[in-house]
Amino acid sequence: MPDQQGDLRLAVLGVGMMGAFHADRLSRVVRGARVTVINDARAEQAEKIAGQIPGARVEPDPLAAIAAEDVDAVVIASPGRFHAEQVAACLDRGIPVLAEKPLTTDAESAYRIVQQEAALPSPLIQVGFMRRFDTEYVQLRELIMSGDIGEPLLLHCVHRNPAARPEFDSSMMITDSVVHEVDVVRFLLGEEITAVQVIKPAPTPGTPDGQSDPMLVLLTTEGGRVATVEIFARSGAGYQVRTELVGSAGSALIGLDRGMITTGPGTAGVQRSEAIAPTFIERFATAYTTELQRFVDAARAGRIDGPGTWDGYAAAAVCEAGVAAVRTGERVQVSLQARP
Amino acid sequence: MPDQQGDLRLAVLGVGMMGAFHADRLSRVVRGARVTVINDARAEQAEKIAGQIPGARVEPDPLAAIAAEDVDAVVIASPGRFHAEQVAACLDRGIPVLAEKPLTTDAESAYRIVQQEAALPSPLIQVGFMRRFDTEYVQLRELIMSGDIGEPLLLHCVHRNPAARPEFDSSMMITDSVVHEVDVVRFLLGEEITAVQVIKPAPTPGTPDGQSDPMLVLLTTEGGRVATVEIFARSGAGYQVRTELVGSAGSALIGLDRGMITTGPGTAGVQRSEAIAPTFIERFATAYTTELQRFVDAARAGRIDGPGTWDGYAAAAVCEAGVAAVRTGERVQVSLQARP
Amino acid sequence: MPDQQGDLRLAVLGVGMMGAFHADRLSRVVRGARVTVINDARAEQAEKIAGQIPGARVEPDPLAAIAAEDVDAVVIASPGRFHAEQVAACLDRGIPVLAEKPLTTDAESAYRIVQQEAALPSPLIQVGFMRRFDTEYVQLRELIMSGDIGEPLLLHCVHRNPAARPEFDSSMMITDSVVHEVDVVRFLLGEEITAVQVIKPAPTPGTPDGQSDPMLVLLTTEGGRVATVEIFARSGAGYQVRTELVGSAGSALIGLDRGMITTGPGTAGVQRSEAIAPTFIERFATAYTTELQRFVDAARAGRIDGPGTWDGYAAAAVCEAGVAAVRTGERVQVSLQARP
Amino acid sequence: MPDQQGDLRLAVLGVGMMGAFHADRLSRVVRGARVTVINDARAEQAEKIAGQIPGARVEPDPLAAIAAEDVDAVVIASPGRFHAEQVAACLDRGIPVLAEKPLTTDAESAYRIVQQEAALPSPLIQVGFMRRFDTEYVQLRELIMSGDIGEPLLLHCVHRNPAARPEFDSSMMITDSVVHEVDVVRFLLGEEITAVQVIKPAPTPGTPDGQSDPMLVLLTTEGGRVATVEIFARSGAGYQVRTELVGSAGSALIGLDRGMITTGPGTAGVQRSEAIAPTFIERFATAYTTELQRFVDAARAGRIDGPGTWDGYAAAAVCEAGVAAVRTGERVQVSLQARP
Repeated sequence: MPDQQGDLRLAVLGVGMMGAFHADRLSRVVRGARVTVINDARAEQAEKIAGQIPGARVEPDPLAAIAAEDVDAVVIASPGRFHAEQVAACLDRGIPVLAEKPLTTDAESAYRIVQQEAALPSPLIQVGFMRRFDTEYVQLRELIMSGDIGEPLLLHCVHRNPAARPEFDSSMMITDSVVHEVDVVRFLLGEEITAVQVIKPAPTPGTPDGQSDPMLVLLTTEGGRVATVEIFARSGAGYQVRTELVGSAGSALIGLDRGMITTGPGTAGVQRSEAIAPTFIERFATAYTTELQRFVDAARAGRIDGPGTWDGYAAAAVCEAGVAAVRTGERVQVSLQARP
Repeated sequence: MPDQQGDLRLAVLGVGMMGAFHADRLSRVVRGARVTVINDARAEQAEKIAGQIPGARVEPDPLAAIAAEDVDAVVIASPGRFHAEQVAACLDRGIPVLAEKPLTTDAESAYRIVQQEAALPSPLIQVGFMRRFDTEYVQLRELIMSGDIGEPLLLHCVHRNPAARPEFDSSMMITDSVVHEVDVVRFLLGEEITAVQVIKPAPTPGTPDGQSDPMLVLLTTEGGRVATVEIFARSGAGYQVRTELVGSAGSALIGLDRGMITTGPGTAGVQRSEAIAPTFIERFATAYTTELQRFVDAARAGRIDGPGTWDGYAAAAVCEAGVAAVRTGERVQVSLQARP
Repeated sequence: MPDQQGDLRLAVLGVGMMGAFHADRLSRVVRGARVTVINDARAEQAEKIAGQIPGARVEPDPLAAIAAEDVDAVVIASPGRFHAEQVAACLDRGIPVLAEKPLTTDAESAYRIVQQEAALPSPLIQVGFMRRFDTEYVQLRELIMSGDIGEPLLLHCVHRNPAARPEFDSSMMITDSVVHEVDVVRFLLGEEITAVQVIKPAPTPGTPDGQSDPMLVLLTTEGGRVATVEIFARSGAGYQVRTELVGSAGSALIGLDRGMITTGPGTAGVQRSEAIAPTFIERFATAYTTELQRFVDAARAGRIDGPGTWDGYAAAAVCEAGVAAVRTGERVQVSLQARP
Repeated sequence: MPDQQGDLRLAVLGVGMMGAFHADRLSRVVRGARVTVINDARAEQAEKIAGQIPGARVEPDPLAAIAAEDVDAVVIASPGRFHAEQVAACLDRGIPVLAEKPLTTDAESAYRIVQQEAALPSPLIQVGFMRRFDTEYVQLRELIMSGDIGEPLLLHCVHRNPAARPEFDSSMMITDSVVHEVDVVRFLLGEEITAVQVIKPAPTPGTPDGQSDPMLVLLTTEGGRVATVEIFARSGAGYQVRTELVGSAGSALIGLDRGMITTGPGTAGVQRSEAIAPTFIERFATAYTTELQRFVDAARAGRIDGPGTWDGYAAAAVCEAGVAAVRTGERVQVSLQARP
């Protein structure tokens, strides 16, 4: 384990699109992390990604990467068929893992991991269901927990991708795409899914022979709640992920890129409502962080990267005129000095 | 200057609400930064904030803080009347500064800073107009630059705060609030403001005697473009910041917490449109970052902080049933093993 | 048949909520119609409604009402079990009928009506599926017909009522509520429904014992297209009727009380779009009609019912000042004469 | 005056675009009205429009039209310069008038009309400010009256037309377009306008030389309230009419073609809200009227014009299957008889 001051040193196993994305964020955006080891079955790809990360080296053997001295934790983004062995090795060494979904390729091997981990003093394996960290899903879960929407009864999910490769078949639409909704349903409702049904409508033009796209997946939970999932991998219409919860006291919709929209009794009859940011913190928090990060990045090179003194001066001159305009009620000219 | 591997060491001058917010983000969220020195005229406040930041010490003299050996750059969030002296000291030492607005309290002193900085080889002072880092303002600027909206003609700005202290008078509404729109107009249109007019409607109940709230501010630019600004400090209705650009080929509105809404010719007549995320990266980038950051934070303490193996196993079991349901067209039961 | 100048004389059979609503609109809003005969099994109710309609009389026998000399056409809003006999009597006499749904209570008797009508030279029976006359449904159908949305693949329907009486059981949810979606699916897709499945989630609190509310109804069509219908009679959240069509080239949503929202490729990537009224006709057509109708209604009594000369004078005075303000660029006072 | 049973007989003076639109609606849509006389300075145009209206004749002299025996009321849509004389003639005869705006071309002549009318026992002249009959404006006015939005403080109006003829100059933008906002401000706030200022930004490409388009018009009322009006005649972006009221307890926006959107304190913090139709009446009232009108129009010719018995039969067959599906939980086939 690193001490509290030191950065966490990470190995990233598998640097295809997803792993490379993780490696990049861990090395440029996340605070307190350092990618030290890159592993990929394709040597060239490993070299390429490692070359983009200061201080990272390539380790061709994934198990050696997991065992390396300069590795405190592991991110597994390799193909699913390697996960069982790699995760088990991390558990053996006792270091934390972020494993991209799927945890393993089948329920049986996943359950063996569950059992192996249960023998440890505390859990070490996190699975990459990243929607649990999305602001809107968190909001929706909090709304359910609050009871303000009554008993949750139904979930309507829409999951559309713009396009898919021909080999992305109906089974992969379940295991690679609907798997997110499977976790969302469990996360939001807090109970297990007990049955699955799949309805296969006439396919969209361009669907490979023998496959179905779109499909409707019906999930039933322990408590008898039902979720519908439209999965449409070749929708041609951007990436749309929507979830509507229907409760006994209203409904809530997320995924229109505009925060949560609720319906239910309001101050003036039944309403459709969106929250408004109570203060500038909520509205501009991300802008502040971006401002600070870019300032820090530039300042480390002795530069700035944002509005400068001329902008400050011009604003001051306009505000002086503005204050005079408040006082006089007249239109006040602004005159700027020459720009050096 | 720190070397490329080391963190940038920062002094934060003034740790009222804004400075404390910056100090917190610099020490917890921003990568590559470390707050080493805290300064505030109120000793107790300085101690309190410094106590929340590992490795930070209090320096009671702002000029000593600027001169300190363990300071590579400075964030100035002290009251505006101290800015001129503090910024000048940073320029003297030649280190980067992020100065909260206002740069200084009047145009004359701000222009002296401009001149002083112009004598240096490169600019060192950034002013805290953080809206330039807000995704929506950046989008709007890019739209203007693209020419797709034609000539920019008018800007309608709304700036509402939920409430204000009694001493927040009409002049401060200009210098503390409208100053953001002043910069927005300059940023979006890329030209200077040449005249200001203020219209004072009947005030909202609760406005201090002799003051006006709301007010309408009219800004005219070099190119004859006009911006209207509604400033309403005691609106009682959350924090609402909206900007609508009217161009010769359409209009664009930001600030409804849902991305940019454009109007103009579309594929089926004149339309109001919002962009849809093209891929999961745009839609869930922030969720991925949050996932990684929380994983790293927990992993440094040997823990995880997210969905675990049971979630991975349960998803695998449901997906197995789902794949069977695709094949059979029947409703398939999911049976889970006992949870350890 | 009435001649072209004369009003159509109507009998309304059954004046419960729906029939009374029709009778009122026919006598006050619809042009060219006159309600002459009211029939209801409940004599008191018939008298009450007839009393509200100038020129209408009560006829206690529905078949006598259909046969009456002063009846050119019939609106049937009686309970469904009477429809078969009443519709047949209208067909015998050869006069047009608007029959509220259901046409009859079962498919067999409905088919006998179909056959009886087929023997006539032209159809005479219209069924009360009024959504076919709703602007948004018409727009959605035209979009499908245009081909701009590609092949229709899926329909997601939501049908929520605020509340329901205890005797409104799960079967009535199908025959009284989902029947609208049944017609919508046939209307939009232009093909017959070939299979139905109903999913019964855990019921909302307050659902009568042994009943299911909400339910999910899955409709499959000849062409293999699938529609999902959420029917929720006791939603507690207003009257919400939404329909989303998913096509191979985009999707379209109606029912958010804001016109049709489409997603698909746009001028700037994938977009969510709403049409904007091209001219004032589209935007204010209804206002113009209301204005004219209220003017006519008042003028028949020698009065007016809208803005008057003072409003016209005041507007003229302000516009005169406005034209001066255009010319001078100055603020121009408006001074009004004394109001008589 | 017609008796209560008879239709109101109308003369329409001036059948350019607006007058022809009125004549058409009066003869086809409005109940209880009949257009008997058409007048236009252009004989050919008068003949053309009269030819489209059963029972209408041409009268070349407007004063003769006003005096005609078969005229109970008059709609004036002639050019504004004829209004003073025509309106006065109607007052002399004592019959109701709907005069398109402007009432007359200048404030002085309008005031003479006010005085002439004031001598009559009751007002007879209605001015064509049709926005007062628009659902959204009525809603907004009711909201203000209710006090729920606090004191009205500001109005922001946007009025965009897609295009304008070259002769549509800046003065006409006031008298023909902004005149609507002038009335809206008076209607919503219930007080007179006391001052006008016009701001002229750089014009959009294509604006005739010496003219300004867009313009900003500032209206101040007796109570010190302020309205901003963006008038943009050559916006190229459809017909957009928006009005936002800012009150001391929230704000309300109409004109986005989706009902009134309010902001203010809600059940969960500050919210942006839209009302949801409480029952099917509000949601589908217009569809019902259209259904009935088309049924009546067709029935007068012995036909129907809407869904027929086959639609009723098919729906019955699907619902029978649906009821079976509720009972069995299984997928139930629908089998239809042969279509005759």
